[in-house]
Amino acid sequence: MYIGKVIGRVVATVKDPGLASQRLLIVQPLTALLAPSGRQIVCTDAIGAGAGELVYWTRGKESSFPFLPVEVPTDTTIVGIIDRVNRC
Amino acid sequence: MYIGKVIGRVVATVKDPGLASQRLLIVQPLTALLAPSGRQIVCTDAIGAGAGELVYWTRGKESSFPFLPVEVPTDTTIVGIIDRVNRC
Amino acid sequence: MYIGKVIGRVVATVKDPGLASQRLLIVQPLTALLAPSGRQIVCTDAIGAGAGELVYWTRGKESSFPFLPVEVPTDTTIVGIIDRVNRC
Amino acid sequence: MYIGKVIGRVVATVKDPGLASQRLLIVQPLTALLAPSGRQIVCTDAIGAGAGELVYWTRGKESSFPFLPVEVPTDTTIVGIIDRVNRC
Amino acid sequence: MYIGKVIGRVVATVKDPGLASQRLLIVQPLTALLAPSGRQIVCTDAIGAGAGELVYWTRGKESSFPFLPVEVPTDTTIVGIIDRVNRC
Repeated sequence: MYIGKVIGRVVATVKDPGLASQRLLIVQPLTALLAPSGRQIVCTDAIGAGAGELVYWTRGKESSFPFLPVEVPTDTTIVGIIDRVNRC
Repeated sequence: MYIGKVIGRVVATVKDPGLASQRLLIVQPLTALLAPSGRQIVCTDAIGAGAGELVYWTRGKESSFPFLPVEVPTDTTIVGIIDRVNRC
Repeated sequence: MYIGKVIGRVVATVKDPGLASQRLLIVQPLTALLAPSGRQIVCTDAIGAGAGELVYWTRGKESSFPFLPVEVPTDTTIVGIIDRVNRC
Repeated sequence: MYIGKVIGRVVATVKDPGLASQRLLIVQPLTALLAPSGRQIVCTDAIGAGAGELVYWTRGKESSFPFLPVEVPTDTTIVGIIDRVNRC
Repeated sequence: MYIGKVIGRVVATVKDPGLASQRLLIVQPLTALLAPSGRQIVCTDAIGAGAGELVYWTRGKESSFPFLPVEVPTDTTIVGIIDRVNRC
């Protein structure tokens, strides 16, 4: 999984039926020091993340697991909200 | 999922039978600020996107979900047209 | 899917039985302007591509779909020959 | 699989139920010479790795195999602790 | 698939049971001109590759096909030894 921050939202009227009831959040990937790193992505949201929140997200088929038995055609999903990052 | 813009089309006579009735669109990946970012890709299209439109697309096996029960050998599919990107 | 050009061939005597009857072509990934971009890959070939041809190829599990019901352990397969790229 | 080092931990109260009993470790990917390389990731842990340990981890759906029959929505999992890297 | 060279070995006592009887080789990815390119990876080995050999390897779920019906949690596997690379 990857660390990221919710920085926006995508509004889309025309979309695949499998995505019909999904909020689509824009996430900026971050390093462990919370510095931006790489291209922003569009995530479905399995846990109710809000604007500006620090989250972690999955990539690939696992991203559709939280929505089973519905087969949502998503490959990037927010699966947790980060309270704190502890470095060691 | 990833933000992109339709910038062209691929014409191909010889192709895998699973792709026979698919339009193949060229998509330029974009950042959340809609700046080009990275190599262009060839997408199948689940929703009827047109030239110049802002879209979002999936990568990986999820890209074949919209075409089920047909097993289309595609790994990049346009699944929505973006009306607006709201940053927060 | 991704645009590429066939630039060579890999000869391999020792290989996984699942790859036994497969030609292995070296493909140079290209941008939409047909400029080389990124590391060359080794592809199985679902459609009979030849030396120097412009093709498009898939990455990931979808790459084994054209060979079903045989489970070929490949993650990069040429699935079409490009006649023409139209930009808009 | 990839070489990495455990450099921290993510604390998260709100998360997908599938991740409920999982420790989430921050891993810095490394080269074969053990130099840091690329963005840090958040891994589930199949084998009980500790702070500062050298590990190897998988990416993708295989990352959920160690937790079967539970379908954990993770795409990066530590699957071994490295005792030694021998170069040849 | 990708071209690479076996440059070492990982020794690991603690690992996921699914990896128990697997040799873990370090592979340096190469270009078609056999120049090193990108971070080294840790591969399982489906065909008995040795130190210094030129190989090709898969990434992703296909990497576990050679070990079926055992579900080995690997995402990078050597599936062939390269005798020769012919460019055209």
